[in-house]
Amino acid sequence: MTGEIDPPGDRREPERPDPSSLEQRTKQAGRLPGDRYVKIVRPKEFRRGAGGIYVTTSEALAPSSRAGRVYDGVRRVLFGRPLHTEAEAEERLSKKTGLAILASDNISSSAYATEEAMRVLALAGTGALFLTMPVAVAIVGILAIVVLSETRVIRAYPHGGGSYAVAKENIGVGAGLVAASALLIDYVLTVAVSTAAGVAAISSFVPEVHDQRVVWGVVIIAVLAIGNLRGVREAGVIFAAPTYLYMIGVVGLIAFGLYRIVSGDIPAAARPPDPFPAEGGELLGIFLILKAFSSGAVGLSGSEAVANGTPNFQKPEARNAAVTVVLMGTIFGTIFLGLTYLATTIGVVPSIGEKETVNSLITRSIVGNGPYWWFVQLATAVILLLAANTGFTGFPRLASVLANDRFMPRQFAFRGERLGFSVGIVSLAMMAAFVLAAFGGSVTQLIPLYTLGVFLAFTLSQSGLVRRWWRLRPRAWQLSVVVNVIGAVVTGITLVIVAYTKFSGGAWMVLVVLPLNVLLLYGISAHYRSVSDALTLEDLDQPLPRPLPPIVIVPIARLDRSAVQALAFACSISPHVRAVHIGSSHASAQEFQRRWDRWGGRRLPDGREIPLDVIDSPYRALLQPLLKYIDRIDERDPRPITVVLAEFVPRHWWEFILHSQTAFRLKAALLFRPNTIVIDVPYHFRDTADLSQ
Amino acid sequence: MTGEIDPPGDRREPERPDPSSLEQRTKQAGRLPGDRYVKIVRPKEFRRGAGGIYVTTSEALAPSSRAGRVYDGVRRVLFGRPLHTEAEAEERLSKKTGLAILASDNISSSAYATEEAMRVLALAGTGALFLTMPVAVAIVGILAIVVLSETRVIRAYPHGGGSYAVAKENIGVGAGLVAASALLIDYVLTVAVSTAAGVAAISSFVPEVHDQRVVWGVVIIAVLAIGNLRGVREAGVIFAAPTYLYMIGVVGLIAFGLYRIVSGDIPAAARPPDPFPAEGGELLGIFLILKAFSSGAVGLSGSEAVANGTPNFQKPEARNAAVTVVLMGTIFGTIFLGLTYLATTIGVVPSIGEKETVNSLITRSIVGNGPYWWFVQLATAVILLLAANTGFTGFPRLASVLANDRFMPRQFAFRGERLGFSVGIVSLAMMAAFVLAAFGGSVTQLIPLYTLGVFLAFTLSQSGLVRRWWRLRPRAWQLSVVVNVIGAVVTGITLVIVAYTKFSGGAWMVLVVLPLNVLLLYGISAHYRSVSDALTLEDLDQPLPRPLPPIVIVPIARLDRSAVQALAFACSISPHVRAVHIGSSHASAQEFQRRWDRWGGRRLPDGREIPLDVIDSPYRALLQPLLKYIDRIDERDPRPITVVLAEFVPRHWWEFILHSQTAFRLKAALLFRPNTIVIDVPYHFRDTADLSQ
Repeated sequence: MTGEIDPPGDRREPERPDPSSLEQRTKQAGRLPGDRYVKIVRPKEFRRGAGGIYVTTSEALAPSSRAGRVYDGVRRVLFGRPLHTEAEAEERLSKKTGLAILASDNISSSAYATEEAMRVLALAGTGALFLTMPVAVAIVGILAIVVLSETRVIRAYPHGGGSYAVAKENIGVGAGLVAASALLIDYVLTVAVSTAAGVAAISSFVPEVHDQRVVWGVVIIAVLAIGNLRGVREAGVIFAAPTYLYMIGVVGLIAFGLYRIVSGDIPAAARPPDPFPAEGGELLGIFLILKAFSSGAVGLSGSEAVANGTPNFQKPEARNAAVTVVLMGTIFGTIFLGLTYLATTIGVVPSIGEKETVNSLITRSIVGNGPYWWFVQLATAVILLLAANTGFTGFPRLASVLANDRFMPRQFAFRGERLGFSVGIVSLAMMAAFVLAAFGGSVTQLIPLYTLGVFLAFTLSQSGLVRRWWRLRPRAWQLSVVVNVIGAVVTGITLVIVAYTKFSGGAWMVLVVLPLNVLLLYGISAHYRSVSDALTLEDLDQPLPRPLPPIVIVPIARLDRSAVQALAFACSISPHVRAVHIGSSHASAQEFQRRWDRWGGRRLPDGREIPLDVIDSPYRALLQPLLKYIDRIDERDPRPITVVLAEFVPRHWWEFILHSQTAFRLKAALLFRPNTIVIDVPYHFRDTADLSQ
Repeated sequence: MTGEIDPPGDRREPERPDPSSLEQRTKQAGRLPGDRYVKIVRPKEFRRGAGGIYVTTSEALAPSSRAGRVYDGVRRVLFGRPLHTEAEAEERLSKKTGLAILASDNISSSAYATEEAMRVLALAGTGALFLTMPVAVAIVGILAIVVLSETRVIRAYPHGGGSYAVAKENIGVGAGLVAASALLIDYVLTVAVSTAAGVAAISSFVPEVHDQRVVWGVVIIAVLAIGNLRGVREAGVIFAAPTYLYMIGVVGLIAFGLYRIVSGDIPAAARPPDPFPAEGGELLGIFLILKAFSSGAVGLSGSEAVANGTPNFQKPEARNAAVTVVLMGTIFGTIFLGLTYLATTIGVVPSIGEKETVNSLITRSIVGNGPYWWFVQLATAVILLLAANTGFTGFPRLASVLANDRFMPRQFAFRGERLGFSVGIVSLAMMAAFVLAAFGGSVTQLIPLYTLGVFLAFTLSQSGLVRRWWRLRPRAWQLSVVVNVIGAVVTGITLVIVAYTKFSGGAWMVLVVLPLNVLLLYGISAHYRSVSDALTLEDLDQPLPRPLPPIVIVPIARLDRSAVQALAFACSISPHVRAVHIGSSHASAQEFQRRWDRWGGRRLPDGREIPLDVIDSPYRALLQPLLKYIDRIDERDPRPITVVLAEFVPRHWWEFILHSQTAFRLKAALLFRPNTIVIDVPYHFRDTADLSQ
């Protein structure tokens, strides 16, 4: 028994197992289950498909426990029923919903782009405001170049990925990852900034919201995440109306304003309570104009989203996406130039303390304080809020492209129950909520971090396109090269201007996080590559290694039914079973030994005893002595070590805390031990079935 | 292959295994490990003890991984090295440290008991303050009775448990659990109140602390918890000095005060900036006097701790504990009566706004504003802080007694590395921190919850003792009965007074939580009893059930090295192996099937193929179809279902997120499935050892 120990130095080589036993077993297996295929077809759960492959039905998803059904019910109410993979085509976007979903970020920035530029110029006095229109024209010019090249990106990379795909293929992996990181960061900031702006807009109607703006922001982000988890199409239905209401309201306003100006009835400018003074404190120099330009350039953010979202469109995807991006550029350009023209012609002066927006002043000037003003303000608040949704379309899509290229965890490439990229949606929501909370929900503090990433991605993708045309030389490639060289230079200059003028305001944080993110993506890729190398089967012809029964160690705390069940299972899988008991005192160890010696089960039907080692642990530790014990056995025997754990499973999960978590801790410790297999033999409370028949 | 399915209705009974195979295996085992006991003795880790039992040394506790060593190092700095069980006797308390550790709560309440009584009486005008002395005498009278019966409890129940043990044994389990719950709640409140009072005392020196009092309170509780996790003796060394400094300081003050009064040099009373007015708003009736009494009775709290802590004392435990409890009563009575006499004789009037404590006024009156005043104030602040430590001795000890009786989770009965009841210490710290935070760290709000539990426990234990004397009738039992009947009546009346006068102030919360806690203890006990019934081996002579090779299902995501390893292990433990693949599209399922058909390992050495089922899951779910698949197989076959999971283990824990957690989720889902055994076959990254040789 346990008292018998090899004399020191007696270390025999392990013997090869008797092949007859193995053959005996496999022969016997021939009669038992080898040809006894269990039929798993059940019309409701599994049906037979082509090539002998089973296909699961939606019934196979039904949970079997009560708690599972409750959980499932809650999930269906929140997210809807699971969708079949083939339903993906039906989930695609038309041009109409595509414009609402993918372009709302860009179009919504017309609500503040004019004001951002004016606020900078007004620092040099209200006389400098005449420069707003040239600045706006320059910005729209850049947008035109960007839109032009986006249509080319869409045609060349219809599977999405946008700037990442362009930069990676035409410049290099590094450039692609820089573009991808920049866009990922910008999508997070889009959600945070737009939510903060939307909450700010709400709080101008309901001032109580202001004190709880972080909470409101987080709630709104959660609602957006749930909407997107329900699927792209449902999100489109929810988000389309406000986008169109905003466009109708503002375009109608511009049309009416132009009509009044043309007809000579130039309206008097409404004034905020605290307009900028006529004499400004700053000199109207080139830096100020550049700063105004980069502030207004915030209006270009979000113009990437359509190209990245190309695969979300109905067929023909590329054509629909290209039409949508042109529509987006036209609408943004019209509204931005129209509002800027009205503002400068009427002579609107922005408020120093942000008491009233420039758009509100323009609206009041033209239509007065009536219901139309309310309509435009409300539509503006809602579209600002929904602009956050662009991030929810862009981020998960780009992350899935990166995950398929193994630069992000592969979970990001899985489509959830509703065919959305659930992991991406949830990760984005959490990061955006974190950023929002970290900056206290303040738009002013978040804005400087923004737009840098977009221009970095633009510059890289324009440069990539130049190299592409040079390499492929399609028809009229010279024109394309000229367009994209201009685009690369202009967006590059804009990037430098934005980084320079916004650096101390917060852009430095992006410049710190961005390279770290690139390194992270590289690291993930390197990990996946090395794992794949380690796991790949080089030689498919190699037979399965000859099965060798393992050494089985069964730690036993108490000699009860669960321990007996574990021992019986151990004996059913290998003839080499050892039991071990670790007691916390000599008395308890002795007591266990006595009980074991009285127990009939320690002797197998052939009369052989299961060997038992009893260990007294006077420091009351269990884990470390057991691990050391396994080490000692492992040293002497090259076969895999298998540890069989008797685990007591109570009826309810909360009863787990009443049972010490030793089995769990042991499993965690053994998981990292090489060459060790852990077997859980659960003993179910009120379990009538006996595992050992 | 997988295409071959039984015709419907063909459901054969499972065949019994060929016994020759099993015998073959056990015979072979006779040659392999049955008599090849691996020697685990290593002088540094395991040595042989009496009766063939191994004993681990402290070396066996050494962690083997680098992360483990770092963790271990940090733990040793915080808590010290692990202690041998036999060191427990050395960890015991002498009378000197026992008084400091177990009596500090009671003695420290002399710092505010006088004031609490005076503040109530002063509501009827300062003229009513002459009643403070009679009230104090009444309280000390009750204390004398309590101390008298505590010495009897100690002698009758030297293994601890105090009121719980007395009430349970002599009245019934219900009464015992009520007493235990009352004490457990009171220990939590002791820690919360004393910490809050200590922080308040500190903030009278360092006002900045007041704004962050919750944070400071939580930090102090954490420090106390760490101190107690280091062990009782070390805690004694840390906590003894302040207790004695306080006693010396205050007794010296009383002696000097009495000397001045006796010698006719009655000092003039120092006055706070806002004394109570001479004319009070309330009528000096019986209710007010009772209220003053119950406010002063807060001084009796903590007098339970010594009896509960009896097993912590050095031998002879009972004698040392009895001497300590008498010492405690004498010291508290002396200080309390002394201070009350001085206050009323000098004519000190308390401050309405709690600007200065009565003890500070007394000190200032007698010795002036000099260094002695500072010394007494500082010692008071420190002892108030350390009174919380009484809870840390009482709670874990009582919880361990309850855990041994199976009324609390058994983890509470385990001694940690330093022989303290670690789980109790940590739980107490968390609950006290929670209560402290919930009440915003305010002493005033916490005080009314306090003392109710102590008097409930006293009443029950006194009544229990009456029944004990009646039943056992030892020598002079009649006297004991008289003492304890008086004790029961007096503490019972005090209980009613305290509950009545403090009910609306917060005592109602205790009266709500207490029965819930009793129900919880009952529920835990019922659970353990039913589990024990289910697990106990009725018949030790029964042989081990005949081992029957299980059905082994191997879910395979990708046909790679880890999958091959899992299949090889599955084949080594049973001849009945089935592989299953679940793909998220028909294309990927087909691709897997093609690869499998090309793979040489699917055919065992005897030419038999491992059966494979390929399932296409168009809803992309993995878990539910697999569970349903297992259900289908399980329905047809009564043998235990064994699921072998290939788990990829990366080198670093943080790399886990890069691998989908399917194996983990599957394990969690299967744990609750009856009759199912889960086997983890880990594939270690950079694992050179091959499990299948």
